[in-house]
Amino acid sequence: MDRRDVDVVVVGAGFAGLAAAHRLAEAGRRVALLEARDRVGGRALSRTLADGTHLDLGGQWVGPTQYEMQKLIARYGVATYPTPEFGRAVIDYEGRRLAEMPPEVVRLRAELDRLSRGVPTDAPWEHPEARSLDGQTLASWLAGATGDTAAARTVARQTAGALLSLDAGDASLLETLFYLAGTEGLDVLLGFAGGAQSHRLAGGPQALAERMADALPAGTVFLGEPVRRIEHGAGGAVVRTDGGRYGAAAVIIAVPAVIAGHIDYDPPLPAMREGLTQRMAAGYALKTHAVYREPFWRDLGLSGVSVSSSGVLTETVDNTPPDGPSAVLASFAYGADAHRLRAETPDGRRLAVLSRLAGLFGEQALDAVEFVEFDWLAEPWTRGCFSGHLAPGGWTGFGRALRAPAGVLHWAGTETATRWSGYFDGAVQSGHRAADEVMGLDI
Amino acid sequence: MDRRDVDVVVVGAGFAGLAAAHRLAEAGRRVALLEARDRVGGRALSRTLADGTHLDLGGQWVGPTQYEMQKLIARYGVATYPTPEFGRAVIDYEGRRLAEMPPEVVRLRAELDRLSRGVPTDAPWEHPEARSLDGQTLASWLAGATGDTAAARTVARQTAGALLSLDAGDASLLETLFYLAGTEGLDVLLGFAGGAQSHRLAGGPQALAERMADALPAGTVFLGEPVRRIEHGAGGAVVRTDGGRYGAAAVIIAVPAVIAGHIDYDPPLPAMREGLTQRMAAGYALKTHAVYREPFWRDLGLSGVSVSSSGVLTETVDNTPPDGPSAVLASFAYGADAHRLRAETPDGRRLAVLSRLAGLFGEQALDAVEFVEFDWLAEPWTRGCFSGHLAPGGWTGFGRALRAPAGVLHWAGTETATRWSGYFDGAVQSGHRAADEVMGLDI
Repeated sequence: MDRRDVDVVVVGAGFAGLAAAHRLAEAGRRVALLEARDRVGGRALSRTLADGTHLDLGGQWVGPTQYEMQKLIARYGVATYPTPEFGRAVIDYEGRRLAEMPPEVVRLRAELDRLSRGVPTDAPWEHPEARSLDGQTLASWLAGATGDTAAARTVARQTAGALLSLDAGDASLLETLFYLAGTEGLDVLLGFAGGAQSHRLAGGPQALAERMADALPAGTVFLGEPVRRIEHGAGGAVVRTDGGRYGAAAVIIAVPAVIAGHIDYDPPLPAMREGLTQRMAAGYALKTHAVYREPFWRDLGLSGVSVSSSGVLTETVDNTPPDGPSAVLASFAYGADAHRLRAETPDGRRLAVLSRLAGLFGEQALDAVEFVEFDWLAEPWTRGCFSGHLAPGGWTGFGRALRAPAGVLHWAGTETATRWSGYFDGAVQSGHRAADEVMGLDI
Repeated sequence: MDRRDVDVVVVGAGFAGLAAAHRLAEAGRRVALLEARDRVGGRALSRTLADGTHLDLGGQWVGPTQYEMQKLIARYGVATYPTPEFGRAVIDYEGRRLAEMPPEVVRLRAELDRLSRGVPTDAPWEHPEARSLDGQTLASWLAGATGDTAAARTVARQTAGALLSLDAGDASLLETLFYLAGTEGLDVLLGFAGGAQSHRLAGGPQALAERMADALPAGTVFLGEPVRRIEHGAGGAVVRTDGGRYGAAAVIIAVPAVIAGHIDYDPPLPAMREGLTQRMAAGYALKTHAVYREPFWRDLGLSGVSVSSSGVLTETVDNTPPDGPSAVLASFAYGADAHRLRAETPDGRRLAVLSRLAGLFGEQALDAVEFVEFDWLAEPWTRGCFSGHLAPGGWTGFGRALRAPAGVLHWAGTETATRWSGYFDGAVQSGHRAADEVMGLDI
């Protein structure tokens, strides 16, 4: 079996791995970037329909304070375009149509924002109330704050659902606050213009990832190389794939914890890292795309954006690319709703989604010419989306292991970021941090 | 690479896998029982000290209503002996010594028992309040029931700790109630004489597992065969280890979820099973053994049993074998206490445990002649103890996948049991159930 020797092996060619490889290569380090799939981009994945319409099946947005992504967009000259908002959003609040979120929802959101400000994103376990915050779910907190009200359900769906892609009963309150604390608060997180859903990338974020890969030194990126085993010690590591061996002084593991946990480590990882891996599950959102000849909702004065306090779809958005040719409504289901859809046949899922879209935007929504779905939970090299989250008790019990190197093994990935964790921006930040860590070792 | 064809491959030679293999073999099926380690017994592990003293490093007890284990004990003629209780237990309640648990603790326990009676152990998600019970932690429930009181802390330590080997802030209330519902309630679960800690096995449960393995047809058990990959389809499966291939019509996977999740499946497992795997973490108890020339505590009228509402050790027990020659105190730490001990050096851990034992049983406890520990969380083929537990939201979100076969793949292991889940008895029950499932397929 051939053995290739480099300074650093990076596992996973999503934004974290690409960013790490770039920083290392720019500093003159020899890098092997190993990717299990036959593509780069990780949770960024594009699909082009027969008529040329572009879809983003994974992450898709960038916002103004996501500085790492802004820098990459500028560096690689990627065009961006604003999320279309030509008309009114639909706010379905317990079956009533509202023009804006009711004050009780705004108050609850503000209270979560306020609580989040005390959480140190580099060490949530050091919050004075960490054990109490981590020992309860967001659902328990909401029940204590307001009882089982429409406002609580709405905030549960928007926060646990739309941000963490969990149910409020799964989400640690501390994890929720950590997520908010690493950004600009709920208004920005849930917002379009000026918010986290402000702009999309021409060609999708996968195209940006491809440009990053192309800009690495020749012979850096190895596709179709699933890492199976890492033998490591004080002197370095040998990384084994199905077909090869890579020797390195250090390894950056830039895949989600559920994927990193799938690799054999010799010697085994420290007990605390093992406990962390067992407690960081991926979210289980389901994003679907309904494709239409025309963006019919615009004629009704609607933006295609909807937020619902009940029903199988928590959110929808107009995902029509500026250059068409087709119109696209993207829909998001979370938690128990995502489960309900997963339990259907593909036809049943299509019907359930289109029926709900018809309820929101009118009967024309039933006449989709195409319905495209992609279940990241079933994708073996991702196993869930949007991102991974520590279960209740996870931060206080095992959070210290999140970025702690295990000898020459270093950890990257958006889940390890202290700012915009869960976003591409956090992924890039984490890749840089891990590369700096490794170079601090004087390799 | 050699290929061996059998009717059923069983993965994992703990009590679940051994029980499944026996039931299949007795029905005339050809079985390959594949075990990664060089021993059988799973979470049953014995060690014999130089002077001949027997230690059980993993599970060690059997109780009167654990009928499956009773049957095996009778069948293989294993001697049992009662857990020694020669004197008084020490109950350290907020620093005070009590003769019995105070009434507020008894009331809280009774309330948990009462709640548990409504939980169907074969389908906890069908409880009318399942989502609410699963969407809160035991810590939240205790805070609501009594606030931050000594009684709440005590019940948290005894229930989340001593039973689930978690912290109360990690434990789903529904998972806690499921655990209680599958047994005889908290008095039995926490009890010695007449309870779940009633008797031990001569030679330890590992010796029983070895007798079960020896009684299987020759050529059934393969040690040192870690399963790496399972290719499966309607026609059967091929199971790949480092050195071999095993073809079978069906596979029973009888290892904890965290270990089963480590295998590559082609095609990948259903999305709901993947989500379940990500949410079933193992407990993280730490059991240590202090070895003495004499059981000095008996001279003080003490049984060696202690239960503490604070301090690093939740429980201790006299683990002296009836035939000696040394005396043994076993100590258990859970949750944050286990973390605190893990963070110490081996010498620091020894000192911390012995110091606490001295506080409970007198200065002589410092004079241990040996101190033996074994961290199951760092053991690569177990990765935690006592057993696995679904995180908050896990039962209601993904519980249906717990025993649902994935084509020809069937699931066993104590975590899949509906009675005495978490115990060897549940493991045996689960192995029988999985074997019956497979034979229902008419293999």
